[in-house]
Amino acid sequence: MFLPRKILEEKLQKMLAEDIGQGDITTSLIVPKNCTAEAKVIVKESGIVAGIEEAKILLESLGLKVKTLVADGERIKAKQVLMEIVGDARAMLSVERTLLNLLSRMSGIATTTEKLVERIRKAGLKTKVACTRKTAPGLLYFDKKAVFIGGGDTHRLHLDDMVLIKDNHIVVAGSVEDAVKRARERVSFSKRIEVEVTRVNEALIAAKAGVDIIMLDNFSPKQIEKAIKLLKQAGLFGIVLLEASGGITAENIVAFASTGVDVVSLGEITDSPKTLDISMEIMEIKKNA
Amino acid sequence: MFLPRKILEEKLQKMLAEDIGQGDITTSLIVPKNCTAEAKVIVKESGIVAGIEEAKILLESLGLKVKTLVADGERIKAKQVLMEIVGDARAMLSVERTLLNLLSRMSGIATTTEKLVERIRKAGLKTKVACTRKTAPGLLYFDKKAVFIGGGDTHRLHLDDMVLIKDNHIVVAGSVEDAVKRARERVSFSKRIEVEVTRVNEALIAAKAGVDIIMLDNFSPKQIEKAIKLLKQAGLFGIVLLEASGGITAENIVAFASTGVDVVSLGEITDSPKTLDISMEIMEIKKNA
Amino acid sequence: MFLPRKILEEKLQKMLAEDIGQGDITTSLIVPKNCTAEAKVIVKESGIVAGIEEAKILLESLGLKVKTLVADGERIKAKQVLMEIVGDARAMLSVERTLLNLLSRMSGIATTTEKLVERIRKAGLKTKVACTRKTAPGLLYFDKKAVFIGGGDTHRLHLDDMVLIKDNHIVVAGSVEDAVKRARERVSFSKRIEVEVTRVNEALIAAKAGVDIIMLDNFSPKQIEKAIKLLKQAGLFGIVLLEASGGITAENIVAFASTGVDVVSLGEITDSPKTLDISMEIMEIKKNA
Amino acid sequence: MFLPRKILEEKLQKMLAEDIGQGDITTSLIVPKNCTAEAKVIVKESGIVAGIEEAKILLESLGLKVKTLVADGERIKAKQVLMEIVGDARAMLSVERTLLNLLSRMSGIATTTEKLVERIRKAGLKTKVACTRKTAPGLLYFDKKAVFIGGGDTHRLHLDDMVLIKDNHIVVAGSVEDAVKRARERVSFSKRIEVEVTRVNEALIAAKAGVDIIMLDNFSPKQIEKAIKLLKQAGLFGIVLLEASGGITAENIVAFASTGVDVVSLGEITDSPKTLDISMEIMEIKKNA
Amino acid sequence: MFLPRKILEEKLQKMLAEDIGQGDITTSLIVPKNCTAEAKVIVKESGIVAGIEEAKILLESLGLKVKTLVADGERIKAKQVLMEIVGDARAMLSVERTLLNLLSRMSGIATTTEKLVERIRKAGLKTKVACTRKTAPGLLYFDKKAVFIGGGDTHRLHLDDMVLIKDNHIVVAGSVEDAVKRARERVSFSKRIEVEVTRVNEALIAAKAGVDIIMLDNFSPKQIEKAIKLLKQAGLFGIVLLEASGGITAENIVAFASTGVDVVSLGEITDSPKTLDISMEIMEIKKNA
Amino acid sequence: MFLPRKILEEKLQKMLAEDIGQGDITTSLIVPKNCTAEAKVIVKESGIVAGIEEAKILLESLGLKVKTLVADGERIKAKQVLMEIVGDARAMLSVERTLLNLLSRMSGIATTTEKLVERIRKAGLKTKVACTRKTAPGLLYFDKKAVFIGGGDTHRLHLDDMVLIKDNHIVVAGSVEDAVKRARERVSFSKRIEVEVTRVNEALIAAKAGVDIIMLDNFSPKQIEKAIKLLKQAGLFGIVLLEASGGITAENIVAFASTGVDVVSLGEITDSPKTLDISMEIMEIKKNA
Repeated sequence: MFLPRKILEEKLQKMLAEDIGQGDITTSLIVPKNCTAEAKVIVKESGIVAGIEEAKILLESLGLKVKTLVADGERIKAKQVLMEIVGDARAMLSVERTLLNLLSRMSGIATTTEKLVERIRKAGLKTKVACTRKTAPGLLYFDKKAVFIGGGDTHRLHLDDMVLIKDNHIVVAGSVEDAVKRARERVSFSKRIEVEVTRVNEALIAAKAGVDIIMLDNFSPKQIEKAIKLLKQAGLFGIVLLEASGGITAENIVAFASTGVDVVSLGEITDSPKTLDISMEIMEIKKNA
Repeated sequence: MFLPRKILEEKLQKMLAEDIGQGDITTSLIVPKNCTAEAKVIVKESGIVAGIEEAKILLESLGLKVKTLVADGERIKAKQVLMEIVGDARAMLSVERTLLNLLSRMSGIATTTEKLVERIRKAGLKTKVACTRKTAPGLLYFDKKAVFIGGGDTHRLHLDDMVLIKDNHIVVAGSVEDAVKRARERVSFSKRIEVEVTRVNEALIAAKAGVDIIMLDNFSPKQIEKAIKLLKQAGLFGIVLLEASGGITAENIVAFASTGVDVVSLGEITDSPKTLDISMEIMEIKKNA
Repeated sequence: MFLPRKILEEKLQKMLAEDIGQGDITTSLIVPKNCTAEAKVIVKESGIVAGIEEAKILLESLGLKVKTLVADGERIKAKQVLMEIVGDARAMLSVERTLLNLLSRMSGIATTTEKLVERIRKAGLKTKVACTRKTAPGLLYFDKKAVFIGGGDTHRLHLDDMVLIKDNHIVVAGSVEDAVKRARERVSFSKRIEVEVTRVNEALIAAKAGVDIIMLDNFSPKQIEKAIKLLKQAGLFGIVLLEASGGITAENIVAFASTGVDVVSLGEITDSPKTLDISMEIMEIKKNA
Repeated sequence: MFLPRKILEEKLQKMLAEDIGQGDITTSLIVPKNCTAEAKVIVKESGIVAGIEEAKILLESLGLKVKTLVADGERIKAKQVLMEIVGDARAMLSVERTLLNLLSRMSGIATTTEKLVERIRKAGLKTKVACTRKTAPGLLYFDKKAVFIGGGDTHRLHLDDMVLIKDNHIVVAGSVEDAVKRARERVSFSKRIEVEVTRVNEALIAAKAGVDIIMLDNFSPKQIEKAIKLLKQAGLFGIVLLEASGGITAENIVAFASTGVDVVSLGEITDSPKTLDISMEIMEIKKNA
Repeated sequence: MFLPRKILEEKLQKMLAEDIGQGDITTSLIVPKNCTAEAKVIVKESGIVAGIEEAKILLESLGLKVKTLVADGERIKAKQVLMEIVGDARAMLSVERTLLNLLSRMSGIATTTEKLVERIRKAGLKTKVACTRKTAPGLLYFDKKAVFIGGGDTHRLHLDDMVLIKDNHIVVAGSVEDAVKRARERVSFSKRIEVEVTRVNEALIAAKAGVDIIMLDNFSPKQIEKAIKLLKQAGLFGIVLLEASGGITAENIVAFASTGVDVVSLGEITDSPKTLDISMEIMEIKKNA
Repeated sequence: MFLPRKILEEKLQKMLAEDIGQGDITTSLIVPKNCTAEAKVIVKESGIVAGIEEAKILLESLGLKVKTLVADGERIKAKQVLMEIVGDARAMLSVERTLLNLLSRMSGIATTTEKLVERIRKAGLKTKVACTRKTAPGLLYFDKKAVFIGGGDTHRLHLDDMVLIKDNHIVVAGSVEDAVKRARERVSFSKRIEVEVTRVNEALIAAKAGVDIIMLDNFSPKQIEKAIKLLKQAGLFGIVLLEASGGITAENIVAFASTGVDVVSLGEITDSPKTLDISMEIMEIKKNA
């Protein structure tokens, strides 16, 4: 998920503009023009850092100089300094909250993702941990990128991505077969097709209909195993990818992954993330000559 | 926080546009043009609902008809139907995730806020529960409005609001007194002035300097009581408002509120909200004549 | 490629705003306020019509009433009336050129696409005809949708779509194998991987590396046949999709398709389209009471 | 048509953002951060180059260094290098298609324009070759500038430009005389007035009504000569400018120009341009220390 | 200057959004949802009204019903009711100031313009009264339209309009002749050329160089007469239009107009307008059933 | 009112884009590429300068070098040079009018404000001089900042600022008491509450209801004195702030201020400002090697 700097700058400026309103009145009343400040961005708890690249672009776009001391994806410890900033004190104070809100959210998502990925890795499995489209409205790029940095799978980025036939589409089409058939008729060769199924035997129907991926929605690990058994009997296991979704938590993720599915996905990674506590401290300030 | 419909529409369309990308390919492949669908929006867990007004505007702006069955701020139970939607099936399916992401987040924030407010009310206290500026970047209006619906205080909306002199401003100004003095010299008569203090005796200094509100940052309940004692001795208690901030949780919020502060504030309300689980189900579909 | 009406409206209004500048001075000088006009949109040459849906939304968003007489994808003949418009004469005259520019371009692209698709169908083949990312900057949605309406394949919609490893990526990675390996390591399970190859034996290398699609770039039909032979010998034909690209024209498209590739792609469909000649004629005008 | 760099940057970033979507996934998977690449932009066929200035601004806005080897309006030959680019490999690969789409379209339009202009010049005539408002929606500036670079006349830029009374305006006004009269009453002194006529004798009526320019719409060269004869008899030839429009092609343009009209205009220059084939090749790549 | 409603709506919503910020907190605290209010917009002083069309669109875009009692350009008297509004009380109160700011400014500009035009008409002259590009940044359309409604000439709308060669251009070109020559070489046939001269004899030079209009900058009426005399002697008076600019006021405008110039222009009309005092009064309010 | 440079740049570019349209045709026809010009910005009348910071950002964002010779808020004299500019001649000429429109308006507002402030200061009073929300639509930031630079009070910035209960809100609420009560129930602790009263005894009612500020609307100085007397008798004078508004002019401002109110406010400062006459002169021009 590479975005050229100019495009990221614009997204970041919109966040900043929202938070500032018609101007930072506290800063303009208290901080003289032409003061140079030095500050540190410090994390208060351990985790996986994300958003360093975006933070740097945001700060530099305001004319501030940034020395990053960690890179996206690194494990960080409490009290660790993430970056040092030097430059105009007014600009620095005005951007503080937007900067921290972004870093805290992205690092929180990356940290949560990494914990889940780690559990699976420790269990000796290769199952992918994916997020969903349950991102904060407007933050899609940032939420998805944080998942990627945490070692997760970004799943669909938007509705023009992969074809994903969900429950409501099947209601409209009448059946899984009909829905898949309609999709296959005119879909671009560049797209995968996934279908969401809610009963064990539907998995077999979907696989026979020729989809690339089957989402086993709200299946228990036992139900997943049954479905896999059916697929194996039909010689279709390993031909279609399997994604388990619904009811998966940090506690049961290994049980789900152990069934043999290729992907486990959790809405909570991006929709209810616990942010990482990060703060900015001004270390020194001087009036320019 | 009243925003005219057209302005809200534009914010909501941007969220939708982000999620859709160049078009909902699944829907266009599977759902014929000119189909009318009927759907229900159903909550899966109890809480306080928020975002109903925004949801209605979003749906109506796509030409869908909406019958809302609950109003913002109402307590809702699991399986309760929040609204019924009728209209073009393609539009309905394309907006589903954006609609649910918004409703889930706003309802989650309102639910969390209300729980905190309720604890204080049950303890027979009148302390206000406020959020902070730790909102999701880009969602300021929605996060703050959800707090308001949950019975909370929205605090500053942006940096042009109240003057809030924080730690870093004091570093720049040299002292609490100097920071307050500079602010008072040129601040508009329409603004309140709050100052953040980190030590007990600074609260007295700030009150003497003539601020309207003092934020007691990371004070324990004991320290707060000490500060209040000092203010009482100086005859300044009741003249300035007191806000406790930092380290406040659902568990200790009553202890903080019991000290006699006017406001307790928590970043977590908006920065790490647990969303409410809400879904949309298509009940019927028919091809237009 | 379904986009909700509001999002399309905004794209269309930007086109209109560009063409109007600070106002249509001719119309405001000559056409009185509150005149109702009736007009017909007429095509001057035969082809496949596209853009009807967009045209309707554009006109309706200005308060004009539209009766469409053809649907997107229909074959139209010279002098055929595409739609009838009734409403404010000033609005109608101001939107005329933007309306016609859009309809002419989309219909031109659909017509060109359909001719190519038809040649292949008449030869008894099922090869898909795809466009590329050589669209007019800013018109991606409209160009791709016109290709779809003409029966073509829309290929990648943007750079976050399928992974497509091109010549320059291979230069960076060092070899086809290394490029594919890097991509497969962290790519989302929701994406296909395509690689562009320029020599016959690279096709085999790519297939072995596990890509989903191979683009045979600037291969002659003979070279394609050689590549297919190699793939068959390795038991990989039918496992990977094959796309022929480069040097394909209306004249030789059947020769390319006959080789057995799954897709033939042509940049010219969207990058140098011949527009269809369409005009608007005001039939009647009356001053409102 | 001079636009300050910042305004052009914004237009160009919008094109880029559309093509990239949520990020260039291929590049981010394959190309490491902090690699420097060197590339050449090479044209594959001869023509007149246009868009060099815009290309430079687009590339520089992404932090890339550009050395242009040709200037807008120069004649270029197949295999000629247009510019050399050095800088971040990820940025370079992400912008490749947007860059080439712009350069190819603008150069294609300039090349077509120049051929027409050259035919007239070789015939010893001074007739201007103009485009129309049939530009690609959203590309007005770029299409018109390419025409200018090719030696053509940009005609009206938008509807607030010159007054141009067309067929539909005349239907509304009732007659050519009435339409012109209404326009002259309140038009700004800064504007020219042109009227479109479809019959020979209307040219005389229009000239007598005091317009600045007469557009002879779909006149054959013979009809044009008749109209000129009428104007000469009335002593109005040379007082009003004459524009021939409709049915003009590269083949007959000299015949039209030879009649003595001041301007010949063709929609095809901008509405169905043949793009010039241009590509970007990475020559070298190195990982930054 | 006709702009389709949708385009105007967007401009007006931006004004409203700026004034509202994150929401009208006073209105949301005091005015219940679902109240219908009736209000009148009343002018407190006499003048020429402008902005009625824009006001109506702004109000209707918020779902309010509007009955306009006057039309743009009408003479209005103190205490006259301009329009009646019915609809949601919250929307009405939120838009009040934006509505009045727009109406007051446009009516103020129209009133000032009309006074100047009237002086000239009463003196039996036909000289046009033009504004300049000294509009409030961002309000170009509204300022120019108000001038038009007041009977004035809108002059250039932007820099892509007529060619206007000013003092600084002449410095660059070296001389009036050279500047005009360069412009004439490549200017579109659709554009007029005006040149600003500061000395009497330069007017003759400019006329001989073939410009369409000469701006006599900071000429006294006497100097203008001298220039006209020179032009008459050269047989060029009546061939070029003459615009007097600089130092013109309500007091001396007739003296300037009497010299025989075609246009007098004043920056003050749009740059320092005296607004008309207009207010909105709620007449009745009721809670919806 | 501190806004980071990037956010200001965007506001300023929009102004420029509006004035330029599709390009500065005069400049591109007359001024060669790659010319460097030197210019001075000169004021023609005395006053208080404002907009220097914004002017610098606007010019620098186009790549021009600026040396400012005065700072915002300084008193300037006729013929004084405000800044020197060096850089690309085309960019400089294209931005001239936007630059001057901004500087002239902001300096005009600051000059008017300062005169009013000075009268009060000379009368030995400390009354604040405030503007209102009667700013030019779209120019809120610039108008308010100019008032601040002139020594005035910026009052509410938008509707989410302080609660200001106006006449129409009271009509809805039924009475001053009810309106204030409703507001106090749910308003954030961070906001002040002001109420507008139109009769002397309402001032007492408002003060008793617990508002922070009372706006005495259209009170004569005598009526103000009566209201103050009532407040003193009730022991409420000095507890609530008093703002006099309506009918205040440069002539009577001292009489109003002498009554003892804390603030006098005037809509005219921002709604009918007299701009300061400022121009740009090119001193030298040279063709780059």
